[in-house]
Amino acid sequence: MARHYSKLPDLVRKLIDDKNIAHFATLKKDGNPHITPVWIDRQEDIILVNTTRKRLKTRNAQKDKRVALSITDQTNATSTGQYTWVSIIGEVIEITDDNAETHRDQLTKKYINQPEFPWKDPKDPPTIIKIKPIIIRHS
Amino acid sequence: MARHYSKLPDLVRKLIDDKNIAHFATLKKDGNPHITPVWIDRQEDIILVNTTRKRLKTRNAQKDKRVALSITDQTNATSTGQYTWVSIIGEVIEITDDNAETHRDQLTKKYINQPEFPWKDPKDPPTIIKIKPIIIRHS
Repeated sequence: MARHYSKLPDLVRKLIDDKNIAHFATLKKDGNPHITPVWIDRQEDIILVNTTRKRLKTRNAQKDKRVALSITDQTNATSTGQYTWVSIIGEVIEITDDNAETHRDQLTKKYINQPEFPWKDPKDPPTIIKIKPIIIRHS
Repeated sequence: MARHYSKLPDLVRKLIDDKNIAHFATLKKDGNPHITPVWIDRQEDIILVNTTRKRLKTRNAQKDKRVALSITDQTNATSTGQYTWVSIIGEVIEITDDNAETHRDQLTKKYINQPEFPWKDPKDPPTIIKIKPIIIRHS
């Protein structure tokens, strides 16, 4: 099922709200795709990736707003074959340091159940990439 | 750790050989990235994605050889936070139907432990996308 809209269907909300690792694609300067696993959550229908300023994905997303995300449900990914998945093509609407530290701690709680991010690097502070979904395909 | 080479390190071989879902990025006609979850394996250092001719990813890969893959270890992805991962930028070297049915059955065995792919569609036969890794970053 493919849809052009910016509302997240319930199944997709659940995939994001559960502690599934997302795979985030950005475009390099030369147009090559680049993907890395990321922690995510959302503000209503806007997807939030928490990363750091110095990462390649952040620099890519600053230059080219066209990004994509892929998520599978880790609880059923290899049990039946018919796993739950979503593929999102989106657009970066903002990259901000505001609240990024608190947001990273929230994701730390979500993903590894610790109160605070354990690998802080003062030389590479966190930042939030906000993504508006444009095309959503899901199982 | 980022490396420019086409040999797969042992950690990456293991991520591919284990039954981890890979996330595969291709480029759409307009240059937008597109990602979907896929089953993979490898022939030595060449990564094989089994999909079908009609899929968007196959059509994209025919037009633009620049692709990327991201894999995390499903067994430790959310247990410690320090999960095993790899991010690969690669180049499509061949798209072939040769042996694609057998290869799909092999992946069916690997991923869901069934002898034969259960969702065959005669109107959309399987095909293999062969990818040479170019840049490998991993944990």
